[in-house]
Formats: sequence, C-alpha cells, structure tokens
Amino acid sequence: MAKRAFPLSKVYGLLEPGPVVLLTTAHKGRANVMTMSWHTMMEFEPPLVGCIVSGRHFSFDALVATRRCVLNIPTAELAAKAVNCGNSSGRRVDKFKTFGLTPAPAALVDAPLVAECYANLECAVVDTRWVNRYNFFVLEVLKAWIDPAAKDPRTLHHRGRGVFMVAGETIKLPSKMK
Amino acid sequence: MAKRAFPLSKVYGLLEPGPVVLLTTAHKGRANVMTMSWHTMMEFEPPLVGCIVSGRHFSFDALVATRRCVLNIPTAELAAKAVNCGNSSGRRVDKFKTFGLTPAPAALVDAPLVAECYANLECAVVDTRWVNRYNFFVLEVLKAWIDPAAKDPRTLHHRGRGVFMVAGETIKLPSKMK
Repeated sequence: MAKRAFPLSKVYGLLEPGPVVLLTTAHKGRANVMTMSWHTMMEFEPPLVGCIVSGRHFSFDALVATRRCVLNIPTAELAAKAVNCGNSSGRRVDKFKTFGLTPAPAALVDAPLVAECYANLECAVVDTRWVNRYNFFVLEVLKAWIDPAAKDPRTLHHRGRGVFMVAGETIKLPSKMK
Repeated sequence: MAKRAFPLSKVYGLLEPGPVVLLTTAHKGRANVMTMSWHTMMEFEPPLVGCIVSGRHFSFDALVATRRCVLNIPTAELAAKAVNCGNSSGRRVDKFKTFGLTPAPAALVDAPLVAECYANLECAVVDTRWVNRYNFFVLEVLKAWIDPAAKDPRTLHHRGRGVFMVAGETIKLPSKMK
C-alpha cells in the first residue's frame, strides 16, 4: 500500500474516534506487534498520545528499552489478524510471519510499519513517569503516514471480548471545535 | 429514559470504542456539560478513565474544585446537541436549557446525569498530579447506568472539525482478549 506523509497537525483526527491500533516495536533484532485499544490524544501538535501497555505484554519491555514504537491503524479487513495478534504473544511467535502481516521500514524509528494498515504513526516515548503507576506511556508522534486512497476508513472499535464495532457512516456538523 | 445499574466490571466496553462523551459537572449551584473525545480506559476494575480537560473550559474549574463528574454517552440522535455543547461555554449559557438536555439526579455525585444519553458513568477524580502538566485527570467510575433497551448503540466518534463517524455494524471474533 503506497503511503504519503500526513501532517502532524491532523493526526488527532485519526486517533480521536478510538480505533483499535496495532503497536509495533523492534528490540534485540525482533519485531513484534500487539493489539491495543486504550489510548487517547493528549495534545494537538506536536501530537501527544497517552496509552496503556500492560507489563504482561512482550511489547512492554521493548517499549521501555527502545522508547520507540509505531501505532498502525487497521481497517475492518484486518479484523481477524488484529484479534490473532491480541490472542498470542511475541514471546512465542513471530506474529508478522504467522499472521501474514508485512513489516515495512519506518523513516525515523527501528520499529516497523505494518504495510497493510491505512495509517502509521512513528512515535517516541516522551514521558515514562506513569509507567510504574499505571503502565501509562506518553508518546509523541514524530512522523505520520497515510494511504491517500483511504476515505472514511472502516476502523475497528473494541467493545470487549472480541466484539468490535466497525466505523459506520460519516456526518458533518457545523462545529467550532478543533 | 429508564436506566438500570450496569456492572463496573463491564464499563470498559462502553469507553474502549472511543465515543464522544458529554462531561457534566455541578459547582456553586450551576450544572454544566461539555463535549469531550480525549479519554482512555486505564484500568478494568475499579474502572479508571484518563481524560484531558483543557484549562480553557468552564468545566475545568468545577472538576478541580468538586473532584466529581459524570461521563454521559450520547448516540447519533444527539449529535447536534453534542456539537452545540462543544460550540458554547457554560460561562455564558445554561446548556441544559438552551439545547434541551435534561439533567437527572445522580446517585453518588452532585453532577447531573444527562437523561437522554444511553449510558451514564458517575466519577470521582482520583489523581490530579498530571493536571498541571497535561490537563490530564484520572477518574474512577463509582456507579454506572445504562438504558437496557440500547443494543449496539450508534455512538459518535469525532474525526475533527465537526466530522463524526457514527458506530456501524458489530462483529464478533474469537478473542482471548478481555
């Protein structure tokens, strides 16, 4: 999927609606991907994103050690692969190979982009003070990529225990909100 | 809308998909309601929710002073009212009266429930250490209410500048994820 760079000032519009994301890391020569729903925008520009990564996850150690990751946003076509990534651990399997996801090189971080995702956000961990307390990481988006063909992407939104809401129609209302 | 109590252990399923919420407060005899999209689950039970409330908002002072609020989750039928609440300030208008929203008494907090919302989460502020740094509040959900008739609610998900994605179809996949 050919991507173009996406303005950092517009990144909030990708994450505000609450999509399931695939978080990728690379550490000690191994790339990994985990499924995540607990994230929020914290600042517009540079875009700051807060997210919870439990210490149980293989990705936790990589995130702490490398302070880099990519947030990849899948659409509904990737639902089964996203669930597979959530059902397994990178300690035991290479999820890219096992589930047929394609790692692609990022521009600024060692963690790979997931080529099949319509948007990819290269991130640095910029605040770890709440990692011990809440497993909460503050990420800064350094570089964003988007598939220019993606209009109203059918993102996945987890409701718990494998139930996902798929993004539906888009409406536009006269808003002064950013 | 008649509500029933909703188990705290299932609250994450209401907020994980990233819906726009209406945050209500009550302070010095005035109730207010603001529109918010920047929130994330932080813990399952008791449910902890992190959210950003800018210091520019009238609700900010009420939240700091009272440490109580309600997160009300609207469906698409309330889209225009949610935008109206985002386009105006409680400093100048009584948004409940002006926009036709009904305040209903909560069980454990002074802030009102928005009766028209299909779910209402009564919350206490439990951590203010990142309010100065990020305008980030950690809320604990004390009591949750839901409209038992709401199945696959058509929640609103902001993409920026008045563009909203409305919750679409629901799919179920075999998941070990909570």
